[in-house]
Amino acid sequence: MPGSSLSFGRTLVFAPHPDDEVLGAGGTIARLASEGEEVFVAVVTEGKPPAFDPAEVARTQAEAKEAHRALGVKETFWLRLPAAQLAEMAHVTVNAALLELVRRLAPQTVLLPFVGDMHMDHQLTFASALVACRPHQAEFPKLILAYETLSETNWNAPYLSPAFAPNVFVDISDYREAKLKAMQMFASQLREAPHERSIETLSALATLRGATVLRRAAEAFVLVRHVV
Amino acid sequence: MPGSSLSFGRTLVFAPHPDDEVLGAGGTIARLASEGEEVFVAVVTEGKPPAFDPAEVARTQAEAKEAHRALGVKETFWLRLPAAQLAEMAHVTVNAALLELVRRLAPQTVLLPFVGDMHMDHQLTFASALVACRPHQAEFPKLILAYETLSETNWNAPYLSPAFAPNVFVDISDYREAKLKAMQMFASQLREAPHERSIETLSALATLRGATVLRRAAEAFVLVRHVV
Amino acid sequence: MPGSSLSFGRTLVFAPHPDDEVLGAGGTIARLASEGEEVFVAVVTEGKPPAFDPAEVARTQAEAKEAHRALGVKETFWLRLPAAQLAEMAHVTVNAALLELVRRLAPQTVLLPFVGDMHMDHQLTFASALVACRPHQAEFPKLILAYETLSETNWNAPYLSPAFAPNVFVDISDYREAKLKAMQMFASQLREAPHERSIETLSALATLRGATVLRRAAEAFVLVRHVV
Amino acid sequence: MPGSSLSFGRTLVFAPHPDDEVLGAGGTIARLASEGEEVFVAVVTEGKPPAFDPAEVARTQAEAKEAHRALGVKETFWLRLPAAQLAEMAHVTVNAALLELVRRLAPQTVLLPFVGDMHMDHQLTFASALVACRPHQAEFPKLILAYETLSETNWNAPYLSPAFAPNVFVDISDYREAKLKAMQMFASQLREAPHERSIETLSALATLRGATVLRRAAEAFVLVRHVV
Amino acid sequence: MPGSSLSFGRTLVFAPHPDDEVLGAGGTIARLASEGEEVFVAVVTEGKPPAFDPAEVARTQAEAKEAHRALGVKETFWLRLPAAQLAEMAHVTVNAALLELVRRLAPQTVLLPFVGDMHMDHQLTFASALVACRPHQAEFPKLILAYETLSETNWNAPYLSPAFAPNVFVDISDYREAKLKAMQMFASQLREAPHERSIETLSALATLRGATVLRRAAEAFVLVRHVV
Amino acid sequence: MPGSSLSFGRTLVFAPHPDDEVLGAGGTIARLASEGEEVFVAVVTEGKPPAFDPAEVARTQAEAKEAHRALGVKETFWLRLPAAQLAEMAHVTVNAALLELVRRLAPQTVLLPFVGDMHMDHQLTFASALVACRPHQAEFPKLILAYETLSETNWNAPYLSPAFAPNVFVDISDYREAKLKAMQMFASQLREAPHERSIETLSALATLRGATVLRRAAEAFVLVRHVV
Repeated sequence: MPGSSLSFGRTLVFAPHPDDEVLGAGGTIARLASEGEEVFVAVVTEGKPPAFDPAEVARTQAEAKEAHRALGVKETFWLRLPAAQLAEMAHVTVNAALLELVRRLAPQTVLLPFVGDMHMDHQLTFASALVACRPHQAEFPKLILAYETLSETNWNAPYLSPAFAPNVFVDISDYREAKLKAMQMFASQLREAPHERSIETLSALATLRGATVLRRAAEAFVLVRHVV
Repeated sequence: MPGSSLSFGRTLVFAPHPDDEVLGAGGTIARLASEGEEVFVAVVTEGKPPAFDPAEVARTQAEAKEAHRALGVKETFWLRLPAAQLAEMAHVTVNAALLELVRRLAPQTVLLPFVGDMHMDHQLTFASALVACRPHQAEFPKLILAYETLSETNWNAPYLSPAFAPNVFVDISDYREAKLKAMQMFASQLREAPHERSIETLSALATLRGATVLRRAAEAFVLVRHVV
Repeated sequence: MPGSSLSFGRTLVFAPHPDDEVLGAGGTIARLASEGEEVFVAVVTEGKPPAFDPAEVARTQAEAKEAHRALGVKETFWLRLPAAQLAEMAHVTVNAALLELVRRLAPQTVLLPFVGDMHMDHQLTFASALVACRPHQAEFPKLILAYETLSETNWNAPYLSPAFAPNVFVDISDYREAKLKAMQMFASQLREAPHERSIETLSALATLRGATVLRRAAEAFVLVRHVV
Repeated sequence: MPGSSLSFGRTLVFAPHPDDEVLGAGGTIARLASEGEEVFVAVVTEGKPPAFDPAEVARTQAEAKEAHRALGVKETFWLRLPAAQLAEMAHVTVNAALLELVRRLAPQTVLLPFVGDMHMDHQLTFASALVACRPHQAEFPKLILAYETLSETNWNAPYLSPAFAPNVFVDISDYREAKLKAMQMFASQLREAPHERSIETLSALATLRGATVLRRAAEAFVLVRHVV
Repeated sequence: MPGSSLSFGRTLVFAPHPDDEVLGAGGTIARLASEGEEVFVAVVTEGKPPAFDPAEVARTQAEAKEAHRALGVKETFWLRLPAAQLAEMAHVTVNAALLELVRRLAPQTVLLPFVGDMHMDHQLTFASALVACRPHQAEFPKLILAYETLSETNWNAPYLSPAFAPNVFVDISDYREAKLKAMQMFASQLREAPHERSIETLSALATLRGATVLRRAAEAFVLVRHVV
Repeated sequence: MPGSSLSFGRTLVFAPHPDDEVLGAGGTIARLASEGEEVFVAVVTEGKPPAFDPAEVARTQAEAKEAHRALGVKETFWLRLPAAQLAEMAHVTVNAALLELVRRLAPQTVLLPFVGDMHMDHQLTFASALVACRPHQAEFPKLILAYETLSETNWNAPYLSPAFAPNVFVDISDYREAKLKAMQMFASQLREAPHERSIETLSALATLRGATVLRRAAEAFVLVRHVV
């Protein structure tokens, strides 16, 4: 029987900071990898001294590596732009870093942080990634989705910043546990409930996003562009 | 120490259909009642034969009475406009029914279904309630809030219908159980997970809305108007 | 090499009036049919006397049948609700008519007119179709897209009605001619340029929508919901 | 020296109820008339018994006639659709009434109530007028502006209904008094301050809208469409 | 009789430049102080030479001190970031300056300039204040409101920048004179009517905002977040 | 017979980079010049080495001069701010450069790139031009319009960045050829179809924008402000 189906193909996930990719798309990454797709993660920033303690930075990066391995990420790229300072970088520099990766990997699908997130690094990653994905080159990503990030997306100003109103739902019923486990590997970033960045909240979000489309768990996205 | 505080005063909750008031504001109702406020519920519609089975309608109304009693509702009003047919009613008739109640009760706070809900009865209840609450009479409600309703609010069209982007959060950490119990009394309306209108989803929503503001559970609203 | 791909599966196109389906999605219909998908069209309304001349109505329906055959439509359904009077119908009646068809065909993909179109029949077809596609039944459409209709979508009020800001582009480079031919079969509905509902304008739109994503021709849609 | 200038040409003002045209555009009407333009007013509705007292209706219409004469209106048309019941009319009937007038007068400019006003008669007058002004006939209005109405525009739901964010400002520095006098002729509709529909508020609004563009008084509009 | 009431508690007002706090919230400050609340003002920027004349800067600061004393401000903080150059500061620096103050004062209520104002200093003060008020620390402000600023808020691009659509109205009927007097103390910033930043316009705005909710004078705000 | 008419008066077009003014407003420039208006173009940026090759920059500027002459531009101003680096400039510097020109020329009409364009130079040109056009000086531009730019406007994020929903249409039926010829002079910027920045796409856009208002060709704009 003819059914609809979407395969993401080679997929690149941009994470402004390590853990964003798991909070927003960890279940999707696990599902794609399990279905045989190549999934890449690009961590855009890195905490620089003196604002950030190198030992802490190294610890978080180690957590990320462990989490990515567990999710089945094929390769992680560290762009090492300065964390919390993307707004101080020349935009062409950020654009170029992301564009170079998009050209090299030629992903069919790109996952982005949401432009309405509170953190400027998220907003600027979104903007530069859109430039890197412009549909005017022979190879450009055909599917671009923005994910939500607990402790960012819900803290911006309602009705004054762009609303995260999801229109794409990826069923992760079989990957909820993989996602939560990957997040638990980010011990340095996790908080105790009722903080938003807690396992309990992340699990509740998966339940809610799933229930909206009659699934036990889902991750929700806003579509930026899909070329079919 | 000087702290901010908000008391809702006498409160009227408009429910297009029985159970909307519990899904959207059950915890807030329980908290307000427990804090000594008078809370009224107005059920706007009633299923009419032949589209609705009178026995089913009676059953749901009995469930509502039980749930309202459990939550501490002071009185329930049954406006008995025809369910799923508000759009076929003369608008002045709907306006008049809601206005009469607002005039009689002179509530300080009014809770409404969300104008962006998928169901036209929700949209029209919102519109008529706004007319009933116009700030041009000596007594008018000073605080108007719109609640979200699982199995309605999330099923409309993202970015094409008004987004529910909550800006008011009522802490119901101590009233989550009361809310869920009240919903369980609506056996005729409850569904099994992963349906949105299930206890699991309702609980997940309370966790998520709470976590956004560092609370164990909350109900979220969109502010329509507040006169201080 | 892993590439992204989307197959629409069994597809149902709702047309408020005959020719909307061709103006908005004629190329996509032709492409899907050519790729082996089953495509159905449901014409929601029919002009009723005395407002509409039965001979004219019959002529337009005959044109539609010819155009659908040419595009490869598997079957056309005539819901025969009164044209230009959907707002005077009970909403439950419109909802029921569309729901019955969605249940019977169990389409994976549904194409809708845009809610921001000027014509109320378009707005109400959109609203009722969304009800018919609610994601709470075992079978529900996984992909819902809204198409644009020349002589409707661009004539509403900018910034005051929902904007048609397309995020899904279907390449119809190989189906532009099929689309334009199908539209030419609607001789009763076609107008001379520079009227929007002319072959010249329809062709220009295909060029523009295509160029946005580096294709020779495309049809553009707004995503309502996609469950993957 | 070449300066920019806009002449409105023959102008038609749609008023859902008598006094809307003065509240929203009384100064502009006075200025246009004084500059030699032909200005027409179409009062869309009329209160019908038993909801409205015929004596009251007659009184308000007499007030309107006096106000229009004072402002220099060339002719007033009374469409006599039932007040507060436009939503109960067949839309084609409302469309036809407005279209007939647009065809007969062939105005170059049309002024409309705002689609985001709280009153459904305003929303539906806007919608039907847009249909009547569709740019597909040889003669169609080249400039369409929506005006604001005190006691309607500000009482809808912020961020949930369309915002009145004015982008056209008509200098009425020399016509403020004419506007206020015309409004005073509507004794039956005027209220005492601090009601919004008072002379004090109307004057304050003229001051504010003027000051935004360095004028002593202005009326503000939202542009719907301008063809140059 | 149970009535609704809101007390703001300890309140902090962020002013990008001296006079913004009076233009947007002078009446509210006077009312809160008169009701016994502690109100603090933080002036975020200071004009730096050579762009600004130190004597002028000193004069304006002296005016601010006089105005604040008159309104009953408990203490004024001078953050002394460079005026008209917030966009050139590292964002973490602006964030840190505002966060330090929020932590020190632990206000229950924070008043902000509006993110849609034309001046980048206003936009960036809004953004950094939101970061400083993130609801993830034990103490965070429970009520966040954005005020409007004549000569900024109305000069941005309608429908392209966020609209100021007020949903919170603070009755300042008894504090209009206090507000206008405080503004008159800012002789260096005041302009003659019909400039927006004039006493006449400020008074007209108070009348208009009041009339919307049946008060003789009000200040209007957009709610950012309220935790109850 | 009284007709509506708009004359733009002395007109200034801001182009972030050479060719934007032709893509967005080339036909309007040609028409205005032909009707006797003085039209000026300000090219805001210039590619700087090493990012840009001076020979390439010189070539594009020569193309611009030729195109401007062909269109009838009275004078072209080269502001020579660094291309792709406006975000790295102090905002006051950009503001000052644009303000100086607005003061010197005192244009009645200003045409701007659209704030929702993907390129930051476009966004910042829009923002600074709005500052330069603030309506608080004796002479300020009475009409401000934003134009669309192929290969920028359609590549931003639908529903997340401001939508280009045109409400002003300038008939260029007699100037389409002049526009296309001027664009062909920009050989260094033109691309082959189906790239958006191609003659075919530009011509299709003119056809579409024209057909919306029953004209053979038009350029479409979003109104920012009009003072009449």
